[in-house]
Amino acid sequence: MESLNEYVERYKGIINDHLNNYILSYTTPGRLRESMLYSINAGGKRLRPILVIATLEAFEIDPKKGIPVACALEMIHTYSLIHDDLPAMDNDDLRRGQPTNHKQFDDATAILAGDALLTLSFQVITEADTLSNEEKVFLVNELSKASGPSGMVDGQMRDMLSENEWITLRKLEAIHNSKTGQLLKFAILSGAYLGKVSEESMQAVTEMASALGLIFQIQDDILDVIGDSDAIGKPIGSDEDNKKSTYPQLLGLEGAINQKKHYVDVAQKSLEKTGIQHTVLSELIDYLSNRDC
Amino acid sequence: MESLNEYVERYKGIINDHLNNYILSYTTPGRLRESMLYSINAGGKRLRPILVIATLEAFEIDPKKGIPVACALEMIHTYSLIHDDLPAMDNDDLRRGQPTNHKQFDDATAILAGDALLTLSFQVITEADTLSNEEKVFLVNELSKASGPSGMVDGQMRDMLSENEWITLRKLEAIHNSKTGQLLKFAILSGAYLGKVSEESMQAVTEMASALGLIFQIQDDILDVIGDSDAIGKPIGSDEDNKKSTYPQLLGLEGAINQKKHYVDVAQKSLEKTGIQHTVLSELIDYLSNRDC
Repeated sequence: MESLNEYVERYKGIINDHLNNYILSYTTPGRLRESMLYSINAGGKRLRPILVIATLEAFEIDPKKGIPVACALEMIHTYSLIHDDLPAMDNDDLRRGQPTNHKQFDDATAILAGDALLTLSFQVITEADTLSNEEKVFLVNELSKASGPSGMVDGQMRDMLSENEWITLRKLEAIHNSKTGQLLKFAILSGAYLGKVSEESMQAVTEMASALGLIFQIQDDILDVIGDSDAIGKPIGSDEDNKKSTYPQLLGLEGAINQKKHYVDVAQKSLEKTGIQHTVLSELIDYLSNRDC
Repeated sequence: MESLNEYVERYKGIINDHLNNYILSYTTPGRLRESMLYSINAGGKRLRPILVIATLEAFEIDPKKGIPVACALEMIHTYSLIHDDLPAMDNDDLRRGQPTNHKQFDDATAILAGDALLTLSFQVITEADTLSNEEKVFLVNELSKASGPSGMVDGQMRDMLSENEWITLRKLEAIHNSKTGQLLKFAILSGAYLGKVSEESMQAVTEMASALGLIFQIQDDILDVIGDSDAIGKPIGSDEDNKKSTYPQLLGLEGAINQKKHYVDVAQKSLEKTGIQHTVLSELIDYLSNRDC
């Protein structure tokens, strides 16, 4: 039987091929294309696309149907990293141990590569021959809401405004919900939508997706305290250096770990409600909760 | 009878109201919203939205149908100006005599406001209750192509790479076609598409739209030589100072004016072919050709 790691690696390969094909088909040779390919191929874990695929499979739908939206989602995630790394934003020189886009190219190219990936994501969905017009409209709409000024971009703005300021757990969760939670949620919900699940299943899956976003973020914060800097590709303790509010800082390390366990419980119970607890999707919850990078 | 100026002013008001409503409905109060509203209300001429409307009216279709896509297009145009003005790109402090977005706010906010407007544009189209799913998919697809890595963003990249370099007329036209032509073309074509025009009309209108993009750009270049710096809101001669290739520089001022006249002729003849030469759309061609800002 295929292990979770094998599953993840298999779909990583498939997603990588499609991402590269999309960019090669929809751009002309030159610096903009090179810069887009550079960040797309910079070693992303493809968590979001794999969540789309695993959700489809949990509901026994052919995962091929989800490939275009999975790639569109990864393009948006990649664009957000390129823009977040810019000197005007987080000013990061390295990501996953490699020069960030603006270090490899320059700031202008990085801004344009981000803009291009964001725009391309909507082209990819609308040209998918596996999707009906109704599905395309739904997915473009949900993806734009999840990533736009009522989702990810809003979270990034509020995250920047809250730097050097100690905030409450409530506010911290609201920021993470927008900044990283919405896209993770979109991954699960787009899969469930394409799987044409019942309203009860959709509700259970929505609950699971919200918990997953928080699990993801708490683990991020925990890794910044006790992680391996080689594995995560950035120095340990950078949150504290940047005076960023985190779960361990608000709850203590043990409190943060307990909080994460609580959300893992919520997520797994949501899957049970809809009878999909013995699936890769369920394994992925534990995998994300215990990831080391 | 309503004059062209009155027509333009009337629709400017309608478009402005809708743009502000969209942003107020789809964002939460705070710095991101303020920054988006600042640039949206910075005195844009709304040429692209008005071209959508005038095309619909030329084919006797209720212009209301075009309002969402007209606003989406203006959001994309506005985002492109915000990002182009950034220090990493053209580094402009003023636009239309007012501080650019990053001068009024800061670079990070300007990057995010641009990202937000770009993303919001696709949300606006997919939520339009005047459009069918088929129309929404068509418009999102065409708009993403016109503005993405095979359209506007590509043109901006190649324009930057060609700075401080004398280029041929052919290359100059190719850059302008991507950088400004594609969005202007989209304005006309989206109007004609929503007007469900015949294939011959669509072909004529496509010809007209291509000519219009060039008329627009040539006039831009001419204004940089003989314009009124107060009217255009930036100093005269900035193209030469920036060593930018322009029509007057490649063809001489008189040559550029003749080239523009040639394209006006092409554009007007295209309208005649489909019997819509006595329309506001036809008046707009002359208006754009002779605009002083």
